[in-house]
Amino acid sequence: MIFQTTSEDLRTRARTGILNLNGVKLETPVFMPVGTRGVVKTISADDLEELEYSLILGNTYHLYLRPGTAVLERFGGLKKFSTWKRALLTDSGGYQVFSLNSLFKYEQDGVRFQSHIDGSRHYFTPNSVIDIQRTIGSDIMMVLDDCAPFDSSQERLRQSLDRTHRWAEMSVEYWEKNKNSSHLFGIFQGGIDLGLRLESLQKIVSLPFDGIAIGGLSVGEPRKDFIRILEGVSAYTDRSRPLYLMGVGTVPDILDGVKNGVDMFDCVLPTRNARNGQVFTSLGKINLRNEKWKSSDVPIDPHCGCKVCKRYSIGYIRHLHHVGELTAFSLSTYHNLYFMKNFLSEIRKSIQAGEFLKIYAKWKNLYEKPEFSG
Amino acid sequence: MIFQTTSEDLRTRARTGILNLNGVKLETPVFMPVGTRGVVKTISADDLEELEYSLILGNTYHLYLRPGTAVLERFGGLKKFSTWKRALLTDSGGYQVFSLNSLFKYEQDGVRFQSHIDGSRHYFTPNSVIDIQRTIGSDIMMVLDDCAPFDSSQERLRQSLDRTHRWAEMSVEYWEKNKNSSHLFGIFQGGIDLGLRLESLQKIVSLPFDGIAIGGLSVGEPRKDFIRILEGVSAYTDRSRPLYLMGVGTVPDILDGVKNGVDMFDCVLPTRNARNGQVFTSLGKINLRNEKWKSSDVPIDPHCGCKVCKRYSIGYIRHLHHVGELTAFSLSTYHNLYFMKNFLSEIRKSIQAGEFLKIYAKWKNLYEKPEFSG
Repeated sequence: MIFQTTSEDLRTRARTGILNLNGVKLETPVFMPVGTRGVVKTISADDLEELEYSLILGNTYHLYLRPGTAVLERFGGLKKFSTWKRALLTDSGGYQVFSLNSLFKYEQDGVRFQSHIDGSRHYFTPNSVIDIQRTIGSDIMMVLDDCAPFDSSQERLRQSLDRTHRWAEMSVEYWEKNKNSSHLFGIFQGGIDLGLRLESLQKIVSLPFDGIAIGGLSVGEPRKDFIRILEGVSAYTDRSRPLYLMGVGTVPDILDGVKNGVDMFDCVLPTRNARNGQVFTSLGKINLRNEKWKSSDVPIDPHCGCKVCKRYSIGYIRHLHHVGELTAFSLSTYHNLYFMKNFLSEIRKSIQAGEFLKIYAKWKNLYEKPEFSG
Repeated sequence: MIFQTTSEDLRTRARTGILNLNGVKLETPVFMPVGTRGVVKTISADDLEELEYSLILGNTYHLYLRPGTAVLERFGGLKKFSTWKRALLTDSGGYQVFSLNSLFKYEQDGVRFQSHIDGSRHYFTPNSVIDIQRTIGSDIMMVLDDCAPFDSSQERLRQSLDRTHRWAEMSVEYWEKNKNSSHLFGIFQGGIDLGLRLESLQKIVSLPFDGIAIGGLSVGEPRKDFIRILEGVSAYTDRSRPLYLMGVGTVPDILDGVKNGVDMFDCVLPTRNARNGQVFTSLGKINLRNEKWKSSDVPIDPHCGCKVCKRYSIGYIRHLHHVGELTAFSLSTYHNLYFMKNFLSEIRKSIQAGEFLKIYAKWKNLYEKPEFSG
């Protein structure tokens, strides 16, 4: 087993654990920064090491198109190519085919699509995305699935489930015959229909995946539906395996994920928002572009110990954002990833101390209100 | 005196020296990275310290417009605002008024212009730009001058000289009455007319400036004219004061500058070219965007000791440029600034060892030919 539970909250399904990925051990719940194209945007591998991240995400769809598998093969995988020495998870590329392309077509055994970059034609199958992820050299591979929009018809949701389940079986069969030291996670779907969700979860849990992922949630559905599905499925997950909530998320969403037993998260939010000037602090989120910070000589967050907060004033970083200097993006990204690392660490400690709901309430209160006014 | 010559080449006017700027001592010839808007583009103050730069340039025109003198005053100057602890030189803003604005008008005692950002109206005078630079808190301030295009009529060049000289006198008079620990450099003009150049040099040298700058050279004139003017003025400079060649430059131009007695250089080239994928190596310049580097697992420069070359392959950095990741810009900028620091260091050592012409020939040969083909 790659996963061990180390403590459980008594009043919720929150838990801490250890994920062991080919020798890289990390504590869960964990947040994974997103390195779509072989780099976490605007920062370097040095920065990620300094920030003490042990697991990042790469996007199979993007890496398959550029630099492409020939280059990755030549270098011995993405880790060697990008000099990332710790653990790597890759998605299957299925979600990007659907979200980045206007031209794609699901077939019985795979999905045809045209590149969003040059229009070239490609075909992903459950087996081919495993091969691509093997070339990328990820420690955790995700299966190809069919993620239907949350507001799809019942017919489309049923089709998504059938396809997702058939592909999951094909993936397992192919994987069993071609195993290496990597690990394969299954994904369950079902939109915001709890019945379909439970059916899909049951099917995916029945297969010998190393971990289970919730796909197709946090894709635009109302927050109450997000919570309803999370709560509805949480009692039926397999607690012996890690649970991964894909593409999540915000501070409140991570809190509700953890509360419902989620162990792993990834999201572009901390990095993308940083580039837009939104940073996270111990008092709530703030917008660095705001005129009001113009003359402020305090750090972004006086309680933050990151190298950005130790050195620079919010007034200076606001200036860099205001004039459009790229250094603004890297400094803000660094800060937000430092915040996320500490936020997850605080969550883990609170679970171990039996005080998760206290931390849950504290951060919910800070992050469900409008921006901190300084 | 802020400057002391420490060694002189016997066959050229190349020399080494020590520039002492309010306690920051640095060796010349020196190259100053350009931090137009309070940051050297794409990197951080940490990076600059790691690169061991002791003197950088800020642009008065840009800083005056954003963040503006009120903010800079509030922070106690640009150094405190940007956390730069070493020495700072600022230009007068005159060149940017002329090069960035379509709407500007020279008057007897100053220049009126509209901001290139919002069209707001402003007026720079010899005295006001000294006040602005005092607020910025630079260790070396430049006087306001009138830089005419190199292909101007004789009438326009004469006007530029008269205005530049009158403003230089006004600057000195104002400065003498309002001195602080900063230093004021004069600028001589004259386009590519050697007679006017010598007249202007004589005038500027006659005033009690702490250093002398060559303005209006390397602004698009043919290279043979650039060399002719450099060689023509070099015998008439005041060797007791530092000589600064503004806005230069390329590897060959720096070599010819040093050969003709120049002590200080600044240029956006190493940083701007880095963002365009052009990097400098011990074998010549190369274009990182080139397809041919796609699968190359060697560093940008196998002989370079910078942290980028120690960690990343040219294939990976080429990929980052190819897909447009901002990390490509910061890694390439870091490398180019490391190269420039070492290049100037090699020049200084060669002068001290009496071997400047050997180094001159070596680098000229490498950088006057087309791109190194790998």
